Amino acid sequence: MSEADQSAAASTERSGDGSEQGVVDLLAALAYGELSAFDRLAEDARAAPTLTGRAALASMAAAEIGHYRLLEEQLAQRGVAVEDVMQPFVEPFDAFNASTAPHSWLESLVKAYVGDGLAADFYREVAEWLDPATRELVLTVLADTGHSAFAEREVRAACAEDESLRDKLTLWGRRLLGEAVTQAQHVVAERDALAELIIRGSGDLTGIAALFKRLQNSHTKRMGRLGLG
Amino acid sequence: MSEADQSAAASTERSGDGSEQGVVDLLAALAYGELSAFDRLAEDARAAPTLTGRAALASMAAAEIGHYRLLEEQLAQRGVAVEDVMQPFVEPFDAFNASTAPHSWLESLVKAYVGDGLAADFYREVAEWLDPATRELVLTVLADTGHSAFAEREVRAACAEDESLRDKLTLWGRRLLGEAVTQAQHVVAERDALAELIIRGSGDLTGIAALFKRLQNSHTKRMGRLGLG
Repeated sequence: MSEADQSAAASTERSGDGSEQGVVDLLAALAYGELSAFDRLAEDARAAPTLTGRAALASMAAAEIGHYRLLEEQLAQRGVAVEDVMQPFVEPFDAFNASTAPHSWLESLVKAYVGDGLAADFYREVAEWLDPATRELVLTVLADTGHSAFAEREVRAACAEDESLRDKLTLWGRRLLGEAVTQAQHVVAERDALAELIIRGSGDLTGIAALFKRLQNSHTKRMGRLGLG
Repeated sequence: MSEADQSAAASTERSGDGSEQGVVDLLAALAYGELSAFDRLAEDARAAPTLTGRAALASMAAAEIGHYRLLEEQLAQRGVAVEDVMQPFVEPFDAFNASTAPHSWLESLVKAYVGDGLAADFYREVAEWLDPATRELVLTVLADTGHSAFAEREVRAACAEDESLRDKLTLWGRRLLGEAVTQAQHVVAERDALAELIIRGSGDLTGIAALFKRLQNSHTKRMGRLGLG
């Protein structure tokens, strides 16, 4: 039994049913998502064409770490170490990032914007099914770090007079959505407690389908704000 | 005339002498130092052997960006854009980082610890010559982000039973000091206003020699806290 599984088993035992484990899984996925977003944004910051762009991405990265620390604290209060419970999510998040490595500064910006937006929409839906204190935490760590306006401005400006660039970035946005859905399904298939939390929360399979539809609609609107799609 | 030189000229004009320009140079060097430290720490975080180490380095990186934002604000109050006034410091800082690229996780930790400590000692001395408000800002951005204990623990533990590793890391620490001094001299030689600020602050050339001696002594003590030297 791995350390992660042991601590997973320990918290399930404590709560007496699987729901505590589902919440721990959710917070752990969110935490590794933040750590992973930090990496991605920090790497993209280095590729920024200007010092302003570099500082903007570095600030977005720093905000993710602030959120990570909040999640670590919340998990510690639940008696689990963030390092242990994040383990099962390392592989799928890393796979998503590897399969969507940006080839340009603009692809990086679109990925940061679309990826964060999609994750935020998903977690915001799920937050509704949680107890009030945990819900508040989740909503706090999802708060926009105030840098999306930067991405919107940069992408719109770059595409303003270049239709072929706009087409390319539109396809890129669609691919990001596809890869994110693939990895999310992979995670849910592997984590029974998380799957249960989502099924119970959505009501049933129709509820899940409706959730996905809402995520897709928000994605389309988000692309529109970048001037894409 | 480059944008950086223009804004440099503008601030010198405003203050009527070169001292304002010296302070802007100092804050700008500090700002690029933070941005550059962010990059370095974020890159090292990716190489961390554990998720705990990765989160620790990512947190140190995030703290640098908090400091960067304070410096940006202070410079804006002085009527200059941080992006412009940082330009002259990009090359020497990048040269320092390129010439001291760590080859292992422990070299990374020693570099973060020793580099930040050395910079903090230097700026703390210089802060004494500034007006109270600027001094306070400089001391705030130098505040230890609370992660040095992590580096001390990791390096000491790794060296405890490996004398040859301790010797290698001791040499690494000496090289870091040497490269830092080389680049600092390069910066001062290029920036008249900054050189003037330092000469006036230290009193004279003997004062500068004494300042360097103090920096060297603190470096030796710092290496001692890592169990090196």
